[in-house]
Amino acid sequence: MGLGYLCTRVRTSLADPVIRWKVIALMGGKMIGLALVLAAMRIFIAPAVYAADGPTPEMNALNTMWVLIAAFLVFCMQVGFVMLEAGFARSRESINILVEGIVDTCICGVTFWAWGFAFMFMDGTPWIGTHGFFLNGIPDTYLTTGVPLLAYWVFQFAFADTCSTITSGAMVGRCGFWGDILYSIGVTGFIYPIIGHWAWGPDGWLVVMSTPFRDFAGSTVVHTIGGAISLAGAIALGPRLGRVFARDGGGPMLPHNIILGAVGGLILWFGWYGFNPGSTLSAMDVQGIARVSFNTTMAACSAGLMALFIVYQRTKKWDLGMTTNGFLAGLVAITCPCYWVSPAGAFFIGIVAAFVVVYGIDLLEFVRVDDPIGAVPVHMMCGIWGTLSLGLFATGQYGVPTPTGMDASVVVKGLFYGGGATQLMAQAIGSGAVTFATLAVAFVLMYAVKATGTLRVSRAGEIEGLDLHEHGMLAYPEFSVHGSPRLTHDIPASGAAVAAIAPVPSRAPSV
Amino acid sequence: MGLGYLCTRVRTSLADPVIRWKVIALMGGKMIGLALVLAAMRIFIAPAVYAADGPTPEMNALNTMWVLIAAFLVFCMQVGFVMLEAGFARSRESINILVEGIVDTCICGVTFWAWGFAFMFMDGTPWIGTHGFFLNGIPDTYLTTGVPLLAYWVFQFAFADTCSTITSGAMVGRCGFWGDILYSIGVTGFIYPIIGHWAWGPDGWLVVMSTPFRDFAGSTVVHTIGGAISLAGAIALGPRLGRVFARDGGGPMLPHNIILGAVGGLILWFGWYGFNPGSTLSAMDVQGIARVSFNTTMAACSAGLMALFIVYQRTKKWDLGMTTNGFLAGLVAITCPCYWVSPAGAFFIGIVAAFVVVYGIDLLEFVRVDDPIGAVPVHMMCGIWGTLSLGLFATGQYGVPTPTGMDASVVVKGLFYGGGATQLMAQAIGSGAVTFATLAVAFVLMYAVKATGTLRVSRAGEIEGLDLHEHGMLAYPEFSVHGSPRLTHDIPASGAAVAAIAPVPSRAPSV
Amino acid sequence: MGLGYLCTRVRTSLADPVIRWKVIALMGGKMIGLALVLAAMRIFIAPAVYAADGPTPEMNALNTMWVLIAAFLVFCMQVGFVMLEAGFARSRESINILVEGIVDTCICGVTFWAWGFAFMFMDGTPWIGTHGFFLNGIPDTYLTTGVPLLAYWVFQFAFADTCSTITSGAMVGRCGFWGDILYSIGVTGFIYPIIGHWAWGPDGWLVVMSTPFRDFAGSTVVHTIGGAISLAGAIALGPRLGRVFARDGGGPMLPHNIILGAVGGLILWFGWYGFNPGSTLSAMDVQGIARVSFNTTMAACSAGLMALFIVYQRTKKWDLGMTTNGFLAGLVAITCPCYWVSPAGAFFIGIVAAFVVVYGIDLLEFVRVDDPIGAVPVHMMCGIWGTLSLGLFATGQYGVPTPTGMDASVVVKGLFYGGGATQLMAQAIGSGAVTFATLAVAFVLMYAVKATGTLRVSRAGEIEGLDLHEHGMLAYPEFSVHGSPRLTHDIPASGAAVAAIAPVPSRAPSV
Repeated sequence: MGLGYLCTRVRTSLADPVIRWKVIALMGGKMIGLALVLAAMRIFIAPAVYAADGPTPEMNALNTMWVLIAAFLVFCMQVGFVMLEAGFARSRESINILVEGIVDTCICGVTFWAWGFAFMFMDGTPWIGTHGFFLNGIPDTYLTTGVPLLAYWVFQFAFADTCSTITSGAMVGRCGFWGDILYSIGVTGFIYPIIGHWAWGPDGWLVVMSTPFRDFAGSTVVHTIGGAISLAGAIALGPRLGRVFARDGGGPMLPHNIILGAVGGLILWFGWYGFNPGSTLSAMDVQGIARVSFNTTMAACSAGLMALFIVYQRTKKWDLGMTTNGFLAGLVAITCPCYWVSPAGAFFIGIVAAFVVVYGIDLLEFVRVDDPIGAVPVHMMCGIWGTLSLGLFATGQYGVPTPTGMDASVVVKGLFYGGGATQLMAQAIGSGAVTFATLAVAFVLMYAVKATGTLRVSRAGEIEGLDLHEHGMLAYPEFSVHGSPRLTHDIPASGAAVAAIAPVPSRAPSV
Repeated sequence: MGLGYLCTRVRTSLADPVIRWKVIALMGGKMIGLALVLAAMRIFIAPAVYAADGPTPEMNALNTMWVLIAAFLVFCMQVGFVMLEAGFARSRESINILVEGIVDTCICGVTFWAWGFAFMFMDGTPWIGTHGFFLNGIPDTYLTTGVPLLAYWVFQFAFADTCSTITSGAMVGRCGFWGDILYSIGVTGFIYPIIGHWAWGPDGWLVVMSTPFRDFAGSTVVHTIGGAISLAGAIALGPRLGRVFARDGGGPMLPHNIILGAVGGLILWFGWYGFNPGSTLSAMDVQGIARVSFNTTMAACSAGLMALFIVYQRTKKWDLGMTTNGFLAGLVAITCPCYWVSPAGAFFIGIVAAFVVVYGIDLLEFVRVDDPIGAVPVHMMCGIWGTLSLGLFATGQYGVPTPTGMDASVVVKGLFYGGGATQLMAQAIGSGAVTFATLAVAFVLMYAVKATGTLRVSRAGEIEGLDLHEHGMLAYPEFSVHGSPRLTHDIPASGAAVAAIAPVPSRAPSV
Repeated sequence: MGLGYLCTRVRTSLADPVIRWKVIALMGGKMIGLALVLAAMRIFIAPAVYAADGPTPEMNALNTMWVLIAAFLVFCMQVGFVMLEAGFARSRESINILVEGIVDTCICGVTFWAWGFAFMFMDGTPWIGTHGFFLNGIPDTYLTTGVPLLAYWVFQFAFADTCSTITSGAMVGRCGFWGDILYSIGVTGFIYPIIGHWAWGPDGWLVVMSTPFRDFAGSTVVHTIGGAISLAGAIALGPRLGRVFARDGGGPMLPHNIILGAVGGLILWFGWYGFNPGSTLSAMDVQGIARVSFNTTMAACSAGLMALFIVYQRTKKWDLGMTTNGFLAGLVAITCPCYWVSPAGAFFIGIVAAFVVVYGIDLLEFVRVDDPIGAVPVHMMCGIWGTLSLGLFATGQYGVPTPTGMDASVVVKGLFYGGGATQLMAQAIGSGAVTFATLAVAFVLMYAVKATGTLRVSRAGEIEGLDLHEHGMLAYPEFSVHGSPRLTHDIPASGAAVAAIAPVPSRAPSV
């Protein structure tokens, strides 16, 4: 039945009007059917072929890339933290800060692998996760995020490390290094992951409350915990030798390199763009990541400006340190509510944060706590404010992020937007519970370390300078440095202190 | 064969049980077939059925992520700018640079939210946008980009902030802080967004020309505007006390920490990878983002090398400051044409930029303008060169980026590639109009601020040092610093100046 | 009308040849219709029907974005390198390091465009690529990656630049600048791309071995090559004037700003998150990029901690320099095996790297090689260790990344996981061949440059200080600096050396 025959047959058949009519009818029917099929496809299949089955591989890759890049930015905050702390400290204790920042990171990596992640992010009890040690026996992706477990781990490691570094802030300049190692293990291995589990674990007790406590990116979990441990540490340590408080006629010791410190602050701001927007764990929630980025920016700006003017009005000087602490305060405060508030909400949350940090610093000075970089006011106090602010400013328009976009069925609404006090109450419960529990445990930890005799360096060591004493080095051996003026005037052996800041005459051969 | 007849015929036919049975069988078969087709589609075709209607959700997420990460990198340029400026300044004025950089950022955030973005990116008139204040009443995504408005805002905020920081470059070391606040509001609130609207607003007059003016990532909009305002500011201020120009037997004052400055320059290069590639607003245009990244790299490399050798040939020294300004010049120049030129084009654009910056610095020295970091030659002059270079080097192969890829229907072709002088003319119109308008308005602004008495610090304040006078602090209070040698030899009160650089005896208790 | 009856009816009907024929005709028609529908869908609906044929446009955009962002992070390592090197050097040679870092980058950009990329990544022979100079005649995307060629170029440029900067590490403080330019062209133009082609070129001889040599992100290709050239350079140069080795009663010269150096180290760690995870060239391999990020973190942490304790056990000091070199050692070592090992594997690879770097530094001191920043132990020695470690620790579970995910058909399994010594042997061949070839060629290069008289500055120039002599500048002209104590005690003209470190009396007018 060759092609020629077929053509002839078709031509002949079509010459017959009846057959022609039938063919036309048949073809018309086919066309109608085709149109119906195409319409059905548009309606039933197009809106996302996968939607029924969850995120596509592309979506998972998008979300994973987002989480990893955010993790890298959060890691970059370590650069900012060590610069901030070292710059605001005296040169004699700046190497100590760098070693501490690096070693805390290393310890955190190991403990968070071995058990920290399991305690915090695995289920078990409302108080602590009970499996997944060394990441054994955990599925490849974290819960329903579609994000690989190891990517999520890197992100959360960077968070844990942040908490650990915040802790060191108020303890600058007089903490022995064995003490630092011990308390660091306590922080990243136990306090942070266990208390963090309450708020961020899949079955944490603050999560399963009828109105859940919400802490989007960690005003409470990272910043309040870190700041509260820092406060306990500063109290357990006591102030640095020679530190005279304002009510006794003194004031804070001078930063040795405020340029370094402020640049570190700006790098923290940069890294915060990983901290907050990355906490969606989803790039598919495009409006969410945009909103979080915007609110993060706005709160930092308003808080920085407000702090500048508060201090200017007092001293007629445009203070760099307070402006830096100001924008950091705004960043800490917006970290909890950044997903749920409007631009105007972010603006006002920042404004209030500026007052919190400025008066918080006053308060600490008044109660004679030596916090060289303002870790307690910035992180603990503004963390509390930010956590509560969600209960006031949440607009009720935004639900929670999911791997494919926003789940609008969840409502988070604050007092000022007609949501009543329910969310505010949940925030108060969460913030209060975490703060008090952390303070309690941290005091136990710090006094336990103190009991080992390793928490504070010896008086002679502190006069020699922490860097020389613990690390055998000076930060700037080629430069002529004079000791901080505040250090000398109440220590008899001031000559010794100054002499110590001459270059090291010899050092271990191989290092 | 009317519709009525057809209905009657159908009804009659279906009354016959045999026909009814046949129709049912036929329909059943069709349904089975439809199900099979749909199943086949799910399996073989489904992985994206949106394309006909514009970008898929995945594409929007890709583009949004690209824009946000680029925005974060552009924000990171603030870190680079303050390091560059502070490093190239004297230590006595370096805190001022940091406060300024941070406060400009904060002011920019607030003004760009309140009205700057509306002026620049909303439609209205060819001269200024007229709605969207406080971002009210704007759709969720920006125009047809598919990118959330708030993400686009963060990106553009970082650009505006860059312009504002560039402005401060030539004004280092003698500008009062109230003056800085006033002119900053003028820059980020008015000059930048309004003149920027001409080139980047949806209905700007430079956009709607028959051959549109094209400025891909802002050689003109960001760099020429910033540099021109800086020039007006430097002229309105006059040089720093003690600054002797080359033709009077002097030369630039020495950078106090050129390591800091050059590291800042490298961080700017890093951040430029957000500035230029991010300006596609689309990651789907894969060849576009690759080409822009490549060209950005190549122009920086060729310009850095060329500047090194130009200066070496003069002084037989390998100058760090000029090499840094050299690669920055290449980056500024390639910012406008980066999407439309070839690798060789980028190479030569960088080579020319090196000459522009070196001779531009000479010119400024000759006309006795004190520009401590070279903001005018790098940003204004190389911005003009880069803008014009598009009219010479555009190859005509590349159209414009869209959310789903490149739109090749637009042709951008320069003189050297057979496109005639049309594009060059458009570039000249745009660059000329923006430069002259900016200079005119900036002089008005600067002299208006000067009339308030806040633009320049008092002579006594400048001798005391800007940091002590305005900010109550020294950058490095522990180090022995000797005043810049150039400062001392024409100021009688040089003893006072040196004395002032001893550590601050006391400071406000709480800050 | 049960199912049984239906089957019977169908069977009976199909037994009738006329009905059979009709069914066949009907089915044939259906099939033709189905084909037409599918074709129509391909044309009108499908603009992304690629899935069957390879990556979709979204996947290509994801992978391209991943590669570009990784490239930017790798570029950021330049910031880290110059800070690390400058901080660990003396202030008198720190400008030199900055100029070198920038100029090496610029040279690398030009040579890698002109011929380096062609030598390394184009095919031709097993020893060198032979086409694609100036990127001419190369397809738009690199091989089958789906990644635009220019994006791949930017990524690989950043790698080449890293190798070039590593090279300068052991040559700090006494290398003339013409010599630096010459050897840099040798490194980025010839040694790195040609020897790199063996391992990473599409037809390199180490790639086409029966069990291919595998170097995921360049422990060998980038770090061993860079470190080995550095060693040859340090030997060709000899130690800095005044450098007394440990066995002669001396020790390393003191870092002038170890804060700067350690911050640079942390920035390198940050940039490494582009270096290793980006080397998948694919974000679709979500488990791969997560695993690489995790392993990179873990090895850095374990190595940093181990190095800290090794040195503490020796000196009872917590050494910042060695801890920094420790985590860098871990990062270098994990660079090769990061895709194929388990968390525990990464942990132990880091532990061993710490020993390698500490004892490597001892060894270099013993053989009297002056390597101011430890480039040889960190990059060459740990690069070798990391390369070999793959042959021990590869688990065999992971194949190779592809644009759409992981290709599990490839097995990479090490000795400890039952894979025998095959992979270990391949690693030994690759590492050995590259190391010896590099050393051989690098000695030729360095002695050739030495023969031109440009490799080492004059004795007078070195006493004056490299920065003043070659660059006409001091890094910190406002600060009182005393010369490194080690420099003075064996150079008669020590008075001259100290005098030289006073501020420059005059400088060229325009720079």
